[in-house]
Amino acid sequence: MMQIGIDSFAAAISDPATGLTLSPVERMQHLLEEIELADQVGLDVFGIGEHHRAEFLDSAPAVILAAAAARTRNIRLTSAVTVLSAADPVRVFQEFATLDLISHGRAEIVAGRGSFVESYPLFGLRLEDYDELFAEKLDLLLAIRENTHVKWSGKHRAPLTGQAVYPRPLQDPLPIWVGVGGTPTSFVRAGMLGLPLMVAIIGGEPKRFRPLVDAYREAGRRAGHPSERLSVGLHAIGFLADTTQQAADDFYPGYAHTFTEIGKERGWPPTTRARSPGWPPPRPRCRACRRPRPCSPART
Amino acid sequence: MMQIGIDSFAAAISDPATGLTLSPVERMQHLLEEIELADQVGLDVFGIGEHHRAEFLDSAPAVILAAAAARTRNIRLTSAVTVLSAADPVRVFQEFATLDLISHGRAEIVAGRGSFVESYPLFGLRLEDYDELFAEKLDLLLAIRENTHVKWSGKHRAPLTGQAVYPRPLQDPLPIWVGVGGTPTSFVRAGMLGLPLMVAIIGGEPKRFRPLVDAYREAGRRAGHPSERLSVGLHAIGFLADTTQQAADDFYPGYAHTFTEIGKERGWPPTTRARSPGWPPPRPRCRACRRPRPCSPART
Repeated sequence: MMQIGIDSFAAAISDPATGLTLSPVERMQHLLEEIELADQVGLDVFGIGEHHRAEFLDSAPAVILAAAAARTRNIRLTSAVTVLSAADPVRVFQEFATLDLISHGRAEIVAGRGSFVESYPLFGLRLEDYDELFAEKLDLLLAIRENTHVKWSGKHRAPLTGQAVYPRPLQDPLPIWVGVGGTPTSFVRAGMLGLPLMVAIIGGEPKRFRPLVDAYREAGRRAGHPSERLSVGLHAIGFLADTTQQAADDFYPGYAHTFTEIGKERGWPPTTRARSPGWPPPRPRCRACRRPRPCSPART
Repeated sequence: MMQIGIDSFAAAISDPATGLTLSPVERMQHLLEEIELADQVGLDVFGIGEHHRAEFLDSAPAVILAAAAARTRNIRLTSAVTVLSAADPVRVFQEFATLDLISHGRAEIVAGRGSFVESYPLFGLRLEDYDELFAEKLDLLLAIRENTHVKWSGKHRAPLTGQAVYPRPLQDPLPIWVGVGGTPTSFVRAGMLGLPLMVAIIGGEPKRFRPLVDAYREAGRRAGHPSERLSVGLHAIGFLADTTQQAADDFYPGYAHTFTEIGKERGWPPTTRARSPGWPPPRPRCRACRRPRPCSPART
């Protein structure tokens, strides 16, 4: 079964073509209207990202999703992604369990490490702990999902010695996906845990991710998880218009602006239409080996 | 100007009279309908508490309030209270700023130390730091409200060295109240900071709190805050029916159940109608001097 949805980061930037800027309150209103429309036309899922930057309004995705839940009937509502490394899994579970009650069982979590790094200094974390933080917090999040009363200890969060986490969600289990970029070990970890996989393709051709998805399925199979649990989702940049040319023309100004701005922080060359007619943008690099992502599993 | 509203803890307990228990998802649905009705009939404000216990569904109040925001037009939406001592003020501000955008400027925060103590072990905090945690985190919350880019350091949270907190709310400033129980120094602190005061009267007669409110206003005046900034709110147990007798009859079973259960943890005698015809319940004790609250300012 294939499901189709939309993810948004609640971007609140000026339109480079018109110079018009929406106020944050207008942008939020439009976003909720977009989710309502997505529900009405029958899309399966709407996701809200998590960022801690001026140009995105999505630092508290569960709060936005709860407002959307009150205005929709069928569409599933997910984070895209929850930056779990920088969060307290207890709070994350509480927020999404609450959302699940409000939405009558339509909540999902996509838990990831985050593509931007602002959340690390903001929440007092070290970028060196990038992966360890995620592994440990995912372990705790799954423990909370498994049992109301939790016994758990780790390095980056106070232990739980049987404390209970409420409310409990309507869905049992509450869906928890692992959001991955291009890091092979992330694909393998998700497979070993038997968790559904959400692949964020910020840049690069989708087909390049096929070997990594194969590695995910193989890891899941070896760990004894049935194949129907090993679902794969793609989060990718997309834009629809009546013709390909129209889509490219409408999409390019905003795309170029955003990726040029992000590129300044990440050392990418300025985005030009000649270099990237729409997309893909310069490929992001693996944090471990510094090679363009996806780097091959053999390299790590 | 007087405003009237309702606070709820989203209690999900069986009705002692009928034995019927609502499911969490039904209770949440009813709560949202109650807020919608409160808005329609013109109440000024609706508050949601924060607890981490089986019988309350309100561990993530901003998430519930966001759903309410999408279904209401005029009513103000507040926490009652946010247990700030156990929270990260950055996340609290982000959540309520998001709520403020969603609700077009109807969000408020009542920040307190909490009446229950579950949140301390759940979030790895020591009860000995009960007051220090609150003072420090309130300081940070106010700093975030004051400036987008925050420079702050303290003992119980990683420092901020100019990191920015987004989104910014529509209201400037976002209303932040101090929620107090019966501790005199809490009243004085709120006055010195020039913050509006929300007095939680869980038990005891409202008139007993008058000297403390006077101390609040006096502290505020001495600190140079104009009297119109020194608003006072009451959060108290209430129940309406056609007659006093009917109110007492309808209210008593649930009241007795709840306060007997809480009393087991706090060392109160069982609630009986002879002892407390409706209310007040046995008065809670001051955490500092162990005398029944409100203890007099002279004692601390």
